[in-house]
Amino acid sequence: MVKASDFKGKHFISMRDYSREQLEFILDTADEMVELEKKGSDACKGKVLASLFFEPSTRTRLSFETAMFRLGGNVTTVADPMTSSAKKGETFEDTILTVQNYADIIAMRHPDDDAALRAAKVAKIPYINGGSGTWEHPTQTMLDLHCMRYAKGRIDGNTIGMIGDLKHGRTVHSLLLALRHFDVKVKLISPDQLKMKTDVIEGTGGRIEISETNDLKSVLPELDVMYVTRVQKERFADPAEYEKVKDAYIVNADLLKKGKKDVVVMHPLPRINEIAADVDPLPNAWYFRQVKHGIYARMAIIGLALGVL
Amino acid sequence: MVKASDFKGKHFISMRDYSREQLEFILDTADEMVELEKKGSDACKGKVLASLFFEPSTRTRLSFETAMFRLGGNVTTVADPMTSSAKKGETFEDTILTVQNYADIIAMRHPDDDAALRAAKVAKIPYINGGSGTWEHPTQTMLDLHCMRYAKGRIDGNTIGMIGDLKHGRTVHSLLLALRHFDVKVKLISPDQLKMKTDVIEGTGGRIEISETNDLKSVLPELDVMYVTRVQKERFADPAEYEKVKDAYIVNADLLKKGKKDVVVMHPLPRINEIAADVDPLPNAWYFRQVKHGIYARMAIIGLALGVL
Amino acid sequence: MVKASDFKGKHFISMRDYSREQLEFILDTADEMVELEKKGSDACKGKVLASLFFEPSTRTRLSFETAMFRLGGNVTTVADPMTSSAKKGETFEDTILTVQNYADIIAMRHPDDDAALRAAKVAKIPYINGGSGTWEHPTQTMLDLHCMRYAKGRIDGNTIGMIGDLKHGRTVHSLLLALRHFDVKVKLISPDQLKMKTDVIEGTGGRIEISETNDLKSVLPELDVMYVTRVQKERFADPAEYEKVKDAYIVNADLLKKGKKDVVVMHPLPRINEIAADVDPLPNAWYFRQVKHGIYARMAIIGLALGVL
Repeated sequence: MVKASDFKGKHFISMRDYSREQLEFILDTADEMVELEKKGSDACKGKVLASLFFEPSTRTRLSFETAMFRLGGNVTTVADPMTSSAKKGETFEDTILTVQNYADIIAMRHPDDDAALRAAKVAKIPYINGGSGTWEHPTQTMLDLHCMRYAKGRIDGNTIGMIGDLKHGRTVHSLLLALRHFDVKVKLISPDQLKMKTDVIEGTGGRIEISETNDLKSVLPELDVMYVTRVQKERFADPAEYEKVKDAYIVNADLLKKGKKDVVVMHPLPRINEIAADVDPLPNAWYFRQVKHGIYARMAIIGLALGVL
Repeated sequence: MVKASDFKGKHFISMRDYSREQLEFILDTADEMVELEKKGSDACKGKVLASLFFEPSTRTRLSFETAMFRLGGNVTTVADPMTSSAKKGETFEDTILTVQNYADIIAMRHPDDDAALRAAKVAKIPYINGGSGTWEHPTQTMLDLHCMRYAKGRIDGNTIGMIGDLKHGRTVHSLLLALRHFDVKVKLISPDQLKMKTDVIEGTGGRIEISETNDLKSVLPELDVMYVTRVQKERFADPAEYEKVKDAYIVNADLLKKGKKDVVVMHPLPRINEIAADVDPLPNAWYFRQVKHGIYARMAIIGLALGVL
Repeated sequence: MVKASDFKGKHFISMRDYSREQLEFILDTADEMVELEKKGSDACKGKVLASLFFEPSTRTRLSFETAMFRLGGNVTTVADPMTSSAKKGETFEDTILTVQNYADIIAMRHPDDDAALRAAKVAKIPYINGGSGTWEHPTQTMLDLHCMRYAKGRIDGNTIGMIGDLKHGRTVHSLLLALRHFDVKVKLISPDQLKMKTDVIEGTGGRIEISETNDLKSVLPELDVMYVTRVQKERFADPAEYEKVKDAYIVNADLLKKGKKDVVVMHPLPRINEIAADVDPLPNAWYFRQVKHGIYARMAIIGLALGVL
């Protein structure tokens, strides 16, 4: 039986660490945050979040900070990697050992794949992984699940397409790992050069049906959820390869006509051109509404780690 | 009859949008903020201002942030344009559609002339224009009016000189548009290359007497208020032109002897050398006292937009 | 008889300005903050700290900000020197005259040696020196003293070694000046090129026994406290000189075996390699615990200057 105190004082670094019951407990807690976000709270009064973004991210940083404010707490921010002690030659571990004296909880974005695991080893206060290289982005997954559950009523029973760059995208890595606990089918849709990392697929332990394709159109009619990510030119060694495939992963209103009428289109944002503007007015467009769920999910994660909920 | 609820949930983007009664209502509200600024307030408890400065501005940013703090609210900040999602290729509209999920109100500085109008079109929460390219800077105008009214007792009846770069200066654009509602005379004093934009003069609708000159000394004896702005070398195609005119727009103690004894000298700051240091100790120097009125004006603007006053 | 009100409204810029009684009053106040830091406080409710770091410093900035949050106040931050008005050509004094309108108290880090003294001359609100060039860093000294007193029980009676770059290190300048009031012996241990500034030694007024050496090992057995700072390569005109001396000032577990069993090892951080990682697990390692005392000391300094304690 999962309970709030299970999360108190704990780090939040990887979707590998959670059971279905635990994920659902966090999602249910996020549900309770919807009301709290509107009326405010003093749950974290006097507490301080260190919001450390050693890689620029307006979006995730502001989401964490507002989540803390909605809980009544304060935030001290490092938004510019150039001002970090790391630039003076300090080890990453020393930075954590120092910063933990300034806060009750840390949320960090870092360009290194192993940053979250290394931080968790030394931090004596809860460390929330706000994106660690191409490895994982577990708070994004909690908001994705929360939005998906809200949009479709439930997570079970859906066929979920992950589209785009599945190799470098930390959001799809965390999402696929979380989905292993649910009764879903996953279609991995990407150019051959950008296929899902095998260690992530192996991390699902064969619990769910996963298929891979580079042909979005062929699987589109089956999808209940489309989780779209960007295919970046700079990921291709040969620019000609990029030119060949780029259009195959662009979602527009015309394409959606070939999908289910109530397909939910999600995106971790920022969206460049991989979802065309003509999708924005459609009821299928959930990517901007999705953002709000980030506040709920992060309020839940912070509040549980601090033991105030 | 203007009332507080008229401003609730509304954007604040241009001086073109307000009547005299509305401006005076905001100024009167700012009067009430003088007391609140000292003793603090819980009016905005639990609320969040997104302070987004896509163009550096210590001054205006800190003024907005402290205004929000004095009202009891919190602030999440983007101070560095390099960390913005815009750099990842996101459209400006997408940034607004995203950020509005993180806050109750947005204050933004942006280098583009049309930023404020574009934001206002899509933002579902109040958007406060904190400077939009060379177009307008309406919160600066509210503080200018509030300071002017305080320094002279009233705005009506004054002859106001705007001095310096009237072409690129967004502060003088907004100020001139606001002054159209008052019983004032305006002297536009600038080098020929930096004359007030004609669309701004046209925006006053011929309601007030406006005259243009490049000779500060000739109109100085008539001025009750001198609103000084900087003449920047880089605005001149030919550096020789700059050298020719630059000294004609420098205000010093000697020059002030030829003006009215109680002339009020204002400046949006930062001041470089266009007001000499020997003016600082004179009772005519209002430019540093002027800064404090920015807190009062922005408290009023934020508080009215959030409907908490 | 020192009392809290002596500090109200006062700047905090140099260790030259304080008596032993005043330093002990601040340290005793910092003792009271230990409890307050845990349970929070509303002492500074509604008040605003302007945290102005015109030189990057994650560590000191976050420490000041959290100190203010623990007292219930708010913080408006400039973390990036590139966004400062100084870059637009504004004088430093004008920046202070402006910013003081946005806050109740200023904490500033600045690269210029004379920044703190210049600011104190014009600021009408309390100005806290958070590091002024190579001149002084007095809040660091208060935390150093607070940690030292806690680790050793008392400051009197100790032999304190300052190790490393004593020429450019503002922390050791302020620390030596403060120690003149205590019954201590000081050993200054540095390469010849990086000896303590003579004006700082003269500032102690001959009140304490100070000796200088470049041989750490020779004085090690006498030391109760080792205050280690970094020897930076770029401080040497001739890189060969650096290579010759660098290893002589590295503290490791082997070296410590030749010192007193209970020697306290401190460091202002960030630490690069001047303290080896094998010291970290030893009970002598105080440099990370030292950080927490920064919160207590800065809470005391801010609270006293604002007259809320």
